[in-house]
Amino acid sequence: MISKSSLYHVVESMAPLYVAMGLGYASVRFRAFTPEQCAGINHFVALFAMPLLIFRMISSNDPYAMNLRFIAADTIQKAAILAALALWARLSARGSLAWVVTLFSLATLPNTIIMGVPILRGMYGSMSGTLMVQIVVLQFAFWYVLVVFLFEYMAAQRALVAKQQQAAAPAAVVLTVLDGDQQINASAVVPVTEGDRNADTNTEAAMPPPPAEAEAAMAAPSAKLILLMAAKKILKIPSIHASMLGLVWSFIAYREGIKLPTIIDDSVAIISVSATGLATFSVGTFMAQQSRFISCGCSVASLAMAMRFLVGPAVMAASSLAVGLHGDLLHVGIVQAALPLAVISFVYAKEYNVHPEIMSTGVIVGTFASFPITIIYYILLGL
Amino acid sequence: MISKSSLYHVVESMAPLYVAMGLGYASVRFRAFTPEQCAGINHFVALFAMPLLIFRMISSNDPYAMNLRFIAADTIQKAAILAALALWARLSARGSLAWVVTLFSLATLPNTIIMGVPILRGMYGSMSGTLMVQIVVLQFAFWYVLVVFLFEYMAAQRALVAKQQQAAAPAAVVLTVLDGDQQINASAVVPVTEGDRNADTNTEAAMPPPPAEAEAAMAAPSAKLILLMAAKKILKIPSIHASMLGLVWSFIAYREGIKLPTIIDDSVAIISVSATGLATFSVGTFMAQQSRFISCGCSVASLAMAMRFLVGPAVMAASSLAVGLHGDLLHVGIVQAALPLAVISFVYAKEYNVHPEIMSTGVIVGTFASFPITIIYYILLGL
Repeated sequence: MISKSSLYHVVESMAPLYVAMGLGYASVRFRAFTPEQCAGINHFVALFAMPLLIFRMISSNDPYAMNLRFIAADTIQKAAILAALALWARLSARGSLAWVVTLFSLATLPNTIIMGVPILRGMYGSMSGTLMVQIVVLQFAFWYVLVVFLFEYMAAQRALVAKQQQAAAPAAVVLTVLDGDQQINASAVVPVTEGDRNADTNTEAAMPPPPAEAEAAMAAPSAKLILLMAAKKILKIPSIHASMLGLVWSFIAYREGIKLPTIIDDSVAIISVSATGLATFSVGTFMAQQSRFISCGCSVASLAMAMRFLVGPAVMAASSLAVGLHGDLLHVGIVQAALPLAVISFVYAKEYNVHPEIMSTGVIVGTFASFPITIIYYILLGL
Repeated sequence: MISKSSLYHVVESMAPLYVAMGLGYASVRFRAFTPEQCAGINHFVALFAMPLLIFRMISSNDPYAMNLRFIAADTIQKAAILAALALWARLSARGSLAWVVTLFSLATLPNTIIMGVPILRGMYGSMSGTLMVQIVVLQFAFWYVLVVFLFEYMAAQRALVAKQQQAAAPAAVVLTVLDGDQQINASAVVPVTEGDRNADTNTEAAMPPPPAEAEAAMAAPSAKLILLMAAKKILKIPSIHASMLGLVWSFIAYREGIKLPTIIDDSVAIISVSATGLATFSVGTFMAQQSRFISCGCSVASLAMAMRFLVGPAVMAASSLAVGLHGDLLHVGIVQAALPLAVISFVYAKEYNVHPEIMSTGVIVGTFASFPITIIYYILLGL
């Protein structure tokens, strides 16, 4: 049974996140910030604050002392959901790769870094903060890479279809199609929302894709080419750099027993401490800038919420029990699986134009819904 | 004699500030951020991060345990310099109120909150952090209010001159002059740099000054009217609100022995922790956006540096000794007086167009110069 005081402690850990979000929301609604100014803050988060926070988290995590059982449960949950979705896509007429990626992201990619660490710490103490970091390592080292790869695969497929259509079309269309390709390529320099595009396009404008690539895209999308494109895209995401660098450093540091010099650690920290506040503020501005809270249909929104708050946690519970987790470890796994959707999932969906309206709804409604839902999970698990 | 290790400790406390500044500078130079995006970050600092940091600092400072001697030394330093400048302005043909305000700001208003707290803590331990807060209380409760009052007085004087000229001018000019007045009134909603103006003007557009005010401005600028205008302006500065609120709360809390509930304190902290990193980042973007590092003449720049790094600390040393300070307290007072110029001083100078080029130079050159100068002061005082 959860005591009143520990319940209040959880509310204490969640409230600041919602206050920062509310501040962001109000700032846009009362026109204290222009969309371009919001984009500046979002860009700062994507380019500096988040990567440095991820680096600091991962580099200070002992990779030789990871909880393998916990990681296994997390991996089995994601792999099982992906396999089930792939099977459904193959068997059902309504199934498609786009839906597989969308439903997979909804079910398995919660907001671990920004919301998971403070909330789970408030619930189960500092032990759970360490577990969150282990999940973050896998997210950035594998799962987001996989998601970007699948998005790239779909983009290449679409490009192929466009090329085939172009064979019977006048020359003017060729240019349009090629432009379209470049647009896809120009995305995801950093995770960005709409308003942030300008800066990226500027950066990208200086380096158009080499002609060889455009020609290669004329052929069927080979797995090798798609891998190459995905790799190029992934290597441009600061958070991925940061997690790799952090991982490499953690392997060296914990083997050799060395620490990052204070002067470097403090220089990273001066920016990284701003990540949680600015990122949640940014989610608030994002909400206020959408024309509707539920931008997809209500039935699709319900499906999205069911994937996020029921399927994800249920499969996590099953896989945790399967590997023999129990007690707090089991509870931490389930509650973190029921956190709101990671904003980065919306960002990619938007960039590649694969169900962005569903992901937007997932972030907005999910963030509101998660306040009571997370607490209900916490109470139920404590019975 | 300062040991090598404590000297390194000081460099450790300064380095992160310069790293964040360098990041801001590079971000603009490499076009990772547009001017409008920088304005967004600066606006966030002025509207939320700084006020909340100031509130948190002041509200957690015990007002019944202030070091009266230290405060007296700080007050005497500022009052003495102001008196000397006023005397010079009265006696010299080259003296003017504009120069009094400029030289006073240069000599007595260092960057206490953002740079003072971490650097002085690195030098003399947490005791000096508390002393910095006491200086901040007075800065916001009195000295910045005075500076804004003097700027308002000059603006009113200029408006009067314009009105007198207008008496003999065609009607079209009247409109221009009135517009000019409104422009001055529209300033300083929050401390802003140039790019930040749009948002402010938008906010302000909804509330034009009542006609009575415009008529009143036709008459000679009465002290009462100027006070009213200054009060209106000051009441629009979030940092002033925050410091007043923090002061009131600290008087209540430390008398009654109560504390701010954790849920409120954490909600303030989630934003306020970003202030130091974002504010120094913002100074870096400010530097990169200026066309020249030294935008006033070299001799004026030298005068500005002399006021900041020699006159200010020297008068502080004299006033500290006069009230009987010695040891670390004396050293803390002198070193904090030799910190770089507060960015807010530039912001006001820019808003009221009173020697903005000198203040810009004061911030930029002063920030670079202060790295060695602060350390030299520290070493000399430790001999």
